[in-house]
Amino acid sequence: MILLDAKDSLPLYRQLYDRLRARILTGQLPAHARLPSVREMVHDLGVSRNTVQGAYQELYAEGYIYSAPRSGYFVSSLDQDAAQRSLKPASHAPELQPEPAAGCRFDLHPARLDPGSFPGEIWRKCFIDSLRKHRDALVAYGDPQGELPLRRELQRYLERSRGVVCEVGQIVILAGLQQGLDLVAHLLRDSHRVVAVEDPGYFMPRAVFGNHGFQVLPVPVGPAGLDLEQLAAGAGSIAYVTPSHQLPLGCVMPVASRLKLIEWAESGGRFIIEDDYDSELRYHGKPIASLQGLRPDGNIIYSGTFSKVLSPALRISYLVLPRVLLAAYRRQFRDHFCTVSLLEQQTLARFMELGHWERHLRRMRTCYKRKHDRLLRAVEDHFGPRARVTGQGAGLHVVVQLVGAAPGEAELLRRAAREGLRLYPASDFYLAHKPQGTTLLLGFGAPSLEEIDAAVALLSRICA
Amino acid sequence: MILLDAKDSLPLYRQLYDRLRARILTGQLPAHARLPSVREMVHDLGVSRNTVQGAYQELYAEGYIYSAPRSGYFVSSLDQDAAQRSLKPASHAPELQPEPAAGCRFDLHPARLDPGSFPGEIWRKCFIDSLRKHRDALVAYGDPQGELPLRRELQRYLERSRGVVCEVGQIVILAGLQQGLDLVAHLLRDSHRVVAVEDPGYFMPRAVFGNHGFQVLPVPVGPAGLDLEQLAAGAGSIAYVTPSHQLPLGCVMPVASRLKLIEWAESGGRFIIEDDYDSELRYHGKPIASLQGLRPDGNIIYSGTFSKVLSPALRISYLVLPRVLLAAYRRQFRDHFCTVSLLEQQTLARFMELGHWERHLRRMRTCYKRKHDRLLRAVEDHFGPRARVTGQGAGLHVVVQLVGAAPGEAELLRRAAREGLRLYPASDFYLAHKPQGTTLLLGFGAPSLEEIDAAVALLSRICA
Repeated sequence: MILLDAKDSLPLYRQLYDRLRARILTGQLPAHARLPSVREMVHDLGVSRNTVQGAYQELYAEGYIYSAPRSGYFVSSLDQDAAQRSLKPASHAPELQPEPAAGCRFDLHPARLDPGSFPGEIWRKCFIDSLRKHRDALVAYGDPQGELPLRRELQRYLERSRGVVCEVGQIVILAGLQQGLDLVAHLLRDSHRVVAVEDPGYFMPRAVFGNHGFQVLPVPVGPAGLDLEQLAAGAGSIAYVTPSHQLPLGCVMPVASRLKLIEWAESGGRFIIEDDYDSELRYHGKPIASLQGLRPDGNIIYSGTFSKVLSPALRISYLVLPRVLLAAYRRQFRDHFCTVSLLEQQTLARFMELGHWERHLRRMRTCYKRKHDRLLRAVEDHFGPRARVTGQGAGLHVVVQLVGAAPGEAELLRRAAREGLRLYPASDFYLAHKPQGTTLLLGFGAPSLEEIDAAVALLSRICA
Repeated sequence: MILLDAKDSLPLYRQLYDRLRARILTGQLPAHARLPSVREMVHDLGVSRNTVQGAYQELYAEGYIYSAPRSGYFVSSLDQDAAQRSLKPASHAPELQPEPAAGCRFDLHPARLDPGSFPGEIWRKCFIDSLRKHRDALVAYGDPQGELPLRRELQRYLERSRGVVCEVGQIVILAGLQQGLDLVAHLLRDSHRVVAVEDPGYFMPRAVFGNHGFQVLPVPVGPAGLDLEQLAAGAGSIAYVTPSHQLPLGCVMPVASRLKLIEWAESGGRFIIEDDYDSELRYHGKPIASLQGLRPDGNIIYSGTFSKVLSPALRISYLVLPRVLLAAYRRQFRDHFCTVSLLEQQTLARFMELGHWERHLRRMRTCYKRKHDRLLRAVEDHFGPRARVTGQGAGLHVVVQLVGAAPGEAELLRRAAREGLRLYPASDFYLAHKPQGTTLLLGFGAPSLEEIDAAVALLSRICA
């Protein structure tokens, strides 16, 4: 006996479908059993013809029943064991939720931007412009390499401000460094097995190349950046470097080393990945020019991002591929789609075209220079000779080494967390090597000037 | 003699920097040569102290010169061969530009949406809401798995409309199927080597798994979808399927086959990738329920997208990972960032929360049903017995097989292109097998009702 409930929010045909489906899956209605005709069912249940036909059509479309000409509908033959297991509800494991952000008074994370800094009003206008102009483009896929207006703006900006020499055909728009490195790994995996990374250095290249089965070779970083003798002595044939502002130590690779690195790459069909992640943020003098610009025809893959100055949550980055890789890129990726929203690409292109990007850049440089200077002063005031600062003058963090007896990193992180002070462990950046003594990375992007003072005072107390 | 030009748009300090840099790179200023003191330079050039200091500071920061206490600045020692090559301008190969879209009167591409269909006005409002609400979140990275409000909306929608049973912790927001498959390839590559794909089928799984070094095994598609006997006889331990609407043939895998496929996966630690790319678009009866919902605890990776109903250019898709892969996912990807813009995720979450997604879906179903019906009628009218239509009733295209003597595919595509009619070659979907006779995929998303008539009339003429 099938009971339908007219008060249920589920339509009657759907209720009937559910009841019949359950009987078929449990075997109550066995294989090849004939279903009542539509007319019989209408009569038995007192429902409309549409209700019964709707249910039968669904069951038929999904293969629960089959039809025989002029004899009606019959139950399909299903594997009964498999069928019955399909009726069991899924187990309900405890919900897997992302960890909630811990309560935190001062956030000295090195990759946090100034809280009020996103140019929301201007971005809104550029977005509305680009939605109006490109609405009709949204019904198809965009350019796989990234929208041309954005690549044009980028090409001009990179040439003028970063000394990068390239054509728009070399630029690929991507959703972050991880995707850029993934693309590079795909392009180079057949001919390269070992990638040299900076130690200390950013974890991302290790993670991505490791995932691709590359051997990842840590090479120590000295005051002039990556140790080129150790690089040359190792088996690496790809080198990931941050020459304009080493992450995390903050040093700049001098031009003599840059030229040597370029020669290393060219002499053996090797490749350099230049990650120029935040070199726009330099607080004295102009930004250090790119390595790519020293040898635009060299084996240099240049990577840049909008994450450090505009927003890390927009997920817009780019690669400049050397010409030598373009054919392989097109062969492997011509059928792939761009991973960045066309609307956001066009919004950013408009933002750049109207000069907002360079204005925003200048504004952020001023904002962060004040925070940077305040942080240095606060460390001087509160720590005095107990701390030595390096890597200053650029980016969103400085490196502070504690001098003399100081708690170790783990103990310090525990104490800081207890006081609501968020620190980022420097040791996370180290692979084969270890930081000397207790080393802290102090980010100054997120806190206000007053908070910087208070946070450093607090830090000084818990370091004692 | 150094000449600076006060009328040049480049600041004087930058001009001086450029001149000195060129002399160092060419060797005119040899290694360890002493530079004139700031005071001498000021006197010689008649410029301000700031100009000279600015230029010297840049050269120093980039390592072109070094300083010795109390004796001034000296030229660094550079590899002269390498240095001189850095002064040569980059070669200018002909610009690599994307091909311009060919002039086209009728676009019957199977993956084109209705031109006016993007809900621009509502999207604009949801965007402005979400920008206002989440502006401050833009200064940090978002949730690596995707923003929680969007995953919550998706979980509800998938359960209600697709019969997918999952928790928000199983949903990963991604920038398209290619990225989803890439993630799956990373998760499964250590324990699986052969992936079975539908033949004919979508090229993307072949491309992505091929790039990862998997062996790709084509398995023929019959009227009930993937041929399960051939699947079982082969070495594949991952099966990529489109069970609710086979791409491109349009058939539905009946429940008996679904259960068998599930058993195949479970009995040997194998995996099913269920690509449910457009099953929302079904024009008679309700959409076919998902395979995942038949066995929510099974080894089924469910993939969905907003590309077919909302926009392919927004680049928003998702995976529902089976619980058994969650630990590996977290281990491998916990340090990765989400690739979809936080703002667009929140915009979409808002769009869904306010009921716009389901309203839009109903509107699009009505719109495409009319186009679909018109296309069937036009084929009937213009081809009569010369064509057989299959795969109708869903999605954005139907399959048309020409009966009797008809030009081959290549010839037909040539003729069509000449007349401004864009067709998509069916043979592109075939791997080891070939379509029978001349088979066309006719997309009805892009053209208007009138254009559908005209395009089919034109097609009928050139098929004669």
